[in-house]
Amino acid sequence: MARYFKSDNTAPVAPQILDALREANTGFARGYGDDPLSEQLDARFSTLFERPVRVFPVTTGTAANALALATLVPPYGAVLTHSEGHIVRDECGAPEFMSGGARLMLIEGIGAKVTAAALGGVLDANPTSVHTVQPRALSITQATELGTVYRPDELAALCTLAHSRGLAVHMDGARFANAVASLGCSPAEATWRAGVDVLSFGATKNGAMAAEAVVFFKPELIADFEFRRKRAAHLISKMRYISAQLLAYIEDDLWLTLAARANHLAARIGAAAGGALLHPVEANEIFVRIGEASAARLREAGFEFYDWGAARSGEARFVVSWNQAEEDVEALCTALRALAARGP
Amino acid sequence: MARYFKSDNTAPVAPQILDALREANTGFARGYGDDPLSEQLDARFSTLFERPVRVFPVTTGTAANALALATLVPPYGAVLTHSEGHIVRDECGAPEFMSGGARLMLIEGIGAKVTAAALGGVLDANPTSVHTVQPRALSITQATELGTVYRPDELAALCTLAHSRGLAVHMDGARFANAVASLGCSPAEATWRAGVDVLSFGATKNGAMAAEAVVFFKPELIADFEFRRKRAAHLISKMRYISAQLLAYIEDDLWLTLAARANHLAARIGAAAGGALLHPVEANEIFVRIGEASAARLREAGFEFYDWGAARSGEARFVVSWNQAEEDVEALCTALRALAARGP
Amino acid sequence: MARYFKSDNTAPVAPQILDALREANTGFARGYGDDPLSEQLDARFSTLFERPVRVFPVTTGTAANALALATLVPPYGAVLTHSEGHIVRDECGAPEFMSGGARLMLIEGIGAKVTAAALGGVLDANPTSVHTVQPRALSITQATELGTVYRPDELAALCTLAHSRGLAVHMDGARFANAVASLGCSPAEATWRAGVDVLSFGATKNGAMAAEAVVFFKPELIADFEFRRKRAAHLISKMRYISAQLLAYIEDDLWLTLAARANHLAARIGAAAGGALLHPVEANEIFVRIGEASAARLREAGFEFYDWGAARSGEARFVVSWNQAEEDVEALCTALRALAARGP
Amino acid sequence: MARYFKSDNTAPVAPQILDALREANTGFARGYGDDPLSEQLDARFSTLFERPVRVFPVTTGTAANALALATLVPPYGAVLTHSEGHIVRDECGAPEFMSGGARLMLIEGIGAKVTAAALGGVLDANPTSVHTVQPRALSITQATELGTVYRPDELAALCTLAHSRGLAVHMDGARFANAVASLGCSPAEATWRAGVDVLSFGATKNGAMAAEAVVFFKPELIADFEFRRKRAAHLISKMRYISAQLLAYIEDDLWLTLAARANHLAARIGAAAGGALLHPVEANEIFVRIGEASAARLREAGFEFYDWGAARSGEARFVVSWNQAEEDVEALCTALRALAARGP
Repeated sequence: MARYFKSDNTAPVAPQILDALREANTGFARGYGDDPLSEQLDARFSTLFERPVRVFPVTTGTAANALALATLVPPYGAVLTHSEGHIVRDECGAPEFMSGGARLMLIEGIGAKVTAAALGGVLDANPTSVHTVQPRALSITQATELGTVYRPDELAALCTLAHSRGLAVHMDGARFANAVASLGCSPAEATWRAGVDVLSFGATKNGAMAAEAVVFFKPELIADFEFRRKRAAHLISKMRYISAQLLAYIEDDLWLTLAARANHLAARIGAAAGGALLHPVEANEIFVRIGEASAARLREAGFEFYDWGAARSGEARFVVSWNQAEEDVEALCTALRALAARGP
Repeated sequence: MARYFKSDNTAPVAPQILDALREANTGFARGYGDDPLSEQLDARFSTLFERPVRVFPVTTGTAANALALATLVPPYGAVLTHSEGHIVRDECGAPEFMSGGARLMLIEGIGAKVTAAALGGVLDANPTSVHTVQPRALSITQATELGTVYRPDELAALCTLAHSRGLAVHMDGARFANAVASLGCSPAEATWRAGVDVLSFGATKNGAMAAEAVVFFKPELIADFEFRRKRAAHLISKMRYISAQLLAYIEDDLWLTLAARANHLAARIGAAAGGALLHPVEANEIFVRIGEASAARLREAGFEFYDWGAARSGEARFVVSWNQAEEDVEALCTALRALAARGP
Repeated sequence: MARYFKSDNTAPVAPQILDALREANTGFARGYGDDPLSEQLDARFSTLFERPVRVFPVTTGTAANALALATLVPPYGAVLTHSEGHIVRDECGAPEFMSGGARLMLIEGIGAKVTAAALGGVLDANPTSVHTVQPRALSITQATELGTVYRPDELAALCTLAHSRGLAVHMDGARFANAVASLGCSPAEATWRAGVDVLSFGATKNGAMAAEAVVFFKPELIADFEFRRKRAAHLISKMRYISAQLLAYIEDDLWLTLAARANHLAARIGAAAGGALLHPVEANEIFVRIGEASAARLREAGFEFYDWGAARSGEARFVVSWNQAEEDVEALCTALRALAARGP
Repeated sequence: MARYFKSDNTAPVAPQILDALREANTGFARGYGDDPLSEQLDARFSTLFERPVRVFPVTTGTAANALALATLVPPYGAVLTHSEGHIVRDECGAPEFMSGGARLMLIEGIGAKVTAAALGGVLDANPTSVHTVQPRALSITQATELGTVYRPDELAALCTLAHSRGLAVHMDGARFANAVASLGCSPAEATWRAGVDVLSFGATKNGAMAAEAVVFFKPELIADFEFRRKRAAHLISKMRYISAQLLAYIEDDLWLTLAARANHLAARIGAAAGGALLHPVEANEIFVRIGEASAARLREAGFEFYDWGAARSGEARFVVSWNQAEEDVEALCTALRALAARGP
């Protein structure tokens, strides 16, 4: 029997969100966001974030990221971002596509985190002129692609530098819930209070069906976002069903409850991994160096997970979903402890 | 109380499809189409179309159209299409965007239908060279944007000419169900048997939540479609929920049952419109010349519908949804008959 | 022996301009426009146009047009323009490419001229919303692609309407010299005094080697033009040689002298064409309906010219170059008179 | 008095090439490459390269590079290239623009040279799937952006690996003449015999006015290059003048004579730089670590040159042009020796 640790996108929809879809399914409603549910989004998210925000639903995280960046950066622009980011490695060039060919300018850093020093270093190493692409945005991931989390003070240092160098700050929050649950801070503290300008607020991985939201903390940055969303075919006609997911997701802190559970289970797995652990487990992902042979044995035992990094690196990624069975987690802990006991 | 005739996208989800979503919601499933439901799509649609086809789900009709065309046409290419088409008037330039800047070359024709003669005329009027865009595809809409339907023999004449001139044929089937129900022919006869190469198979407007499928009748045309879909952020992670909609939609001819009902009600409205009717009612849309004053009165009476055509043209579009109440239809018929009685 | 009436781009470089290239060829000069010749451009063109202008050299008219339009129009925008324009028919989609996929929205009109009424009609027939492309510019050609010329009052009516509808006005002046020589007005009257915002100022066809200039009459419209020019590979490194051409071209009214001569000869050919003439000869182009058989005979007699319009239309275009031999013109007049005498 | 070492694009046009322009300036010639001079290009370059090649002139090196790469790589593709390359640092994103958003995937290496090991490392570190960009080309620069030169055996190793991994090989030869002169091998040995598929053959920096050529060694790779060139506005109408430059440039080994002289002078400067030299001087560029204070003094003494690398790195680049005065070179040698004597 398979035990799924491949991605949190293998999990089903949380019952509260499925219920919300059923409740939304009564009678007619205007399309394209002009319905009663969609019209609640701005207010509800403004409450959540403790300031007026504008919210634009889409159905994929890639759409949220790429459309947000395309709005911030011209075709001849550049987005500074960590080399291990999702926008770099897993979106088939969507940011380049949506922006009309802007460049991702890569930054290195431990745990897939960008530091202010590293950001400054890359900017200094790339003086600009009419002959160069123009850095216009910083995109960071929270939680990061390696399961670590930026603290608010780290974010503030980054955003301060970014703004001083003329960069807007975008946060890829595909696992924003896991980050906030991990930090124990408010959504505001994890974003705009630290200087984040635009957030890709993820819900799909943490219990929704297909619902993400681009949250603008500064109305002047919205610019032509709505035209870009439509043109990229991401303006959903029966929008009420996306909005219903988002509303249910933040209702009664469901998003944080689900994320906290996943984080908690992930921490147990991280502890079991012992010295094989590659990065601190600060959200719901565990990265382990297990070697190719052990990876094969785990797969034979029914565990599903991704190989990570370069070909034949022997690194593995395990992701805990909102509904992960305790039993699966226990089984994985046992297996990882056994590997640890055998040594490298 | 509002009576919604604005668009079939204002209708809710059919209960069978909502049930399918709930049934799909059990346990883990691999993402991006590698799940048991998605894996049935090719076989089920191959049965439906009586030949091997490949099926790629997306969540909007605009995505289906624009991605299909981008696969058929290079950036320096042109798509021949009717000037009243959805891809021309309602997609904010998505075909141009997805294709890297290909051009829509417009054809005129009664009832938003392209004739072989008109297609030939436009091709002849635009000789090609290295200095010109290169016509590479014909895109037709079935049912058309004005609610008319191509007969199989009309399609065959068009496709034969298109192919002889080096054009692939794409069909925008956002209301394909209404067209097939209207024609009383098989899906095969309405598409590949007549020469259609790629179909945007719509489900959203006719009872799904957000589900469309790009159906390739010729495997060699798929080319790099999957990269383009991912890059445009239209590869849904929890794909099972899109596939579940599509499977329920074609199960037991649900799609045709729903469409036939809407067509039937639309025909009654068309009859009531009398001389004000602008185009034959062959699917689920009715276009009426009512004048601005009458339009205003209908709106006061609670009817929702779109003004159509040029500003202040006095034309109105009414669309009947799969779940339109008989009572709404009766009320609209009564109102239109009253207008007709008063004369222009 | 061939007699070239195919295009004014078959003509050689005027001796004054070749001399200027030789004079520019002394010692070192900074690249990319930072040389003494290039630095004169703004001042010299400001004198010519009787107001401060900014001038950006490029090497092709297509580059001038497409880069200017890309600066005025976003990717989801539209350019209103005559269906017979060069940007529509002869640039292989360069405006779409440079703009990131903007659309050309076509206007019909006699003699390839756009009227204010026709412009208003197309705008009214295309109401805008988030679902549509957004008209942002009008592009007109002076002299037009059919050899006619806009009078200043016609331009003013067009520009007034365009501006009132939120459109910037671009003029494709590949044959601007011929138009100004024909009108007998000042360059200012033919452009910004009538409301033109940006001009593609052509020199190549009228005696230069490869030199065009984008002239901005409003500095705020320049926006990111310089990044776009570089990115499109149209920032010439040894810019002095392009600037030298442009400076020599406008020195001592050379541009108008050359154009006036060509216009004068073209008028003689137009008169000889008699009833076969398709459009008034107002610049240096003559369009004649001669039929396929006569076209073949003319070609046998050594005349080179383009077939025009649709395939097998029997229409021909003759263009008179700045250095066209009188003898060639006489021979063509004789031939056309003979055709006229034989009747259709 | 200024002594120009800023770039070889500050140099004038070689007299032989200016003469060729004058000779080309007789009478009419068909446009767009259909003239007697342009028609010689393929044959003349085929002789030069000792195999049948196809040659497409453009006016900038950026155009040659970006158009060649756009032909080799789809929008969702990636170009592997050194992080110090011109296409990375000095083309304002032209490759991304021309290709529709392909990515430059960066490789590190000493002297701006890519090694087979480094290429393999980057490919291994970036496993591909539908979620990733697809590596399709390797682009290398000869001579490199740091003035070093690939030997034929190095090229062969690189090309063999690239081809085995599904990459086409493009060579940016903006300073190809300097590389060939330096290697003392044949143009064939420096390109296709080692496995290069497409070459940007530069002439502008080494004595032409504005002339580069894209040389295809494999006809099947040309694909839609001609449409892309036109669409990017790089099909020159009076092509004879570009072709004339290219023909004169390779006539009687002019290109190698000019390059050899510049290389020779550069070597002298490199020797004078002593321990401050940053990279071996293998072509016509010299990179020196001189510090900001010394750089300022050199500038006061009239030397023009670029700061190189990161802001305030204290690195400087000197480029020797084909017509560099011996006296300038002597003066620079003297100045550098003085700096060396003073120590760091």
